[in-house]
Amino acid sequence: MTTAPVTPPRRGRPGYDLESLLAVAVKVFNERGYEATSMEDLSRRLGITKSAIYHHVSGKDELLRLAVDRALDGLSEAARETAALEGRAIDRLEHLVRRSVHVLVERLPFVTLLLRVRGNTKVERRALARRREFDHMVGELVRQAGAEGDVRSDVDPAVVSRLLFGLVNSLTEWYRPRGGMGADALADAVCKIAFTGLRHPPAPQPAPSRREDA
Amino acid sequence: MTTAPVTPPRRGRPGYDLESLLAVAVKVFNERGYEATSMEDLSRRLGITKSAIYHHVSGKDELLRLAVDRALDGLSEAARETAALEGRAIDRLEHLVRRSVHVLVERLPFVTLLLRVRGNTKVERRALARRREFDHMVGELVRQAGAEGDVRSDVDPAVVSRLLFGLVNSLTEWYRPRGGMGADALADAVCKIAFTGLRHPPAPQPAPSRREDA
Repeated sequence: MTTAPVTPPRRGRPGYDLESLLAVAVKVFNERGYEATSMEDLSRRLGITKSAIYHHVSGKDELLRLAVDRALDGLSEAARETAALEGRAIDRLEHLVRRSVHVLVERLPFVTLLLRVRGNTKVERRALARRREFDHMVGELVRQAGAEGDVRSDVDPAVVSRLLFGLVNSLTEWYRPRGGMGADALADAVCKIAFTGLRHPPAPQPAPSRREDA
Repeated sequence: MTTAPVTPPRRGRPGYDLESLLAVAVKVFNERGYEATSMEDLSRRLGITKSAIYHHVSGKDELLRLAVDRALDGLSEAARETAALEGRAIDRLEHLVRRSVHVLVERLPFVTLLLRVRGNTKVERRALARRREFDHMVGELVRQAGAEGDVRSDVDPAVVSRLLFGLVNSLTEWYRPRGGMGADALADAVCKIAFTGLRHPPAPQPAPSRREDA
């Protein structure tokens, strides 16, 4: 943990403020799965009693809500910032991708947890609803960029959106900030591959026979 | 469930062969998480006793092993087939991506489960080791394609590999075979975006100032 406790430790037990408690809880949720983690598990891992945890939060559910909101608030901010931009939709889309990669890097454990939420509880369903709002904005940008002639027309815009943010989200599976590349370099790599592809030189459109496979 | 029971149902209980039992177990693991699922949960969901499950498998661990092996065997076959090809590495890489998308579509619940394995048990660690072999082959193909001048040189080949298979693996998050696009169309879309990008027309290399951001 990197956050120093703000509340003074009492009777030799480690002291946690909400922030550092949340950081440990999210780590455990990501390792063991949210469903599989009990308050008992958290208490053991934190080295404090369950009632000491209840001093900060009403339960596991509130920890989850606080955690996924960290991720969602970051993405909402990126979306708001992008919505305020002018210019071609393809450039705004690229901006949103870049900002999303930054959010992911800066809030990695929170985004990782968010992406594993499946809708089993009210908190999870609310998180999924907020994710859908974000996805809707991405979909709109892709469609608009397509209408402006800046997105290839041989892939369904809905599929382009899914693949693009599938790529961004997949970073949580392997990217680790320590010793890894920085957020700018990572966002750069993602945008290069997603927008102009890994082939060099930029290839001509694939042969027509390929398209008839579908 | 689509698989008809092979063993005759007894005393009004649904009959399961190993295949149909495995299909239900994997569905439950994917919904609730493997760790969070007990044999009791499986028994309730299957509508049979725990001892009826133990007639087929030694426990949860064996169900997991059988399930992830379905995914891994498909990927191994795709890798073997690709290794037997001749020609430029970039084309072999594209073949491997296409075949991997097919494996994912045909074995979606098994691949989904495989991608969530975190290495908590011996079975999981063995699965991760087999995944690493596959990733190693992808990494080799990207490096070779780079050496042949067919992969952009402004992104680290290791990062290209991660992004490429991050994109493929992210399909498990949204792709559903029923009512969705077919495997060929999906593989096509993935290859178009990954190899030549979503921008139209294929863009020139990004401006040098971008690269200095990193």
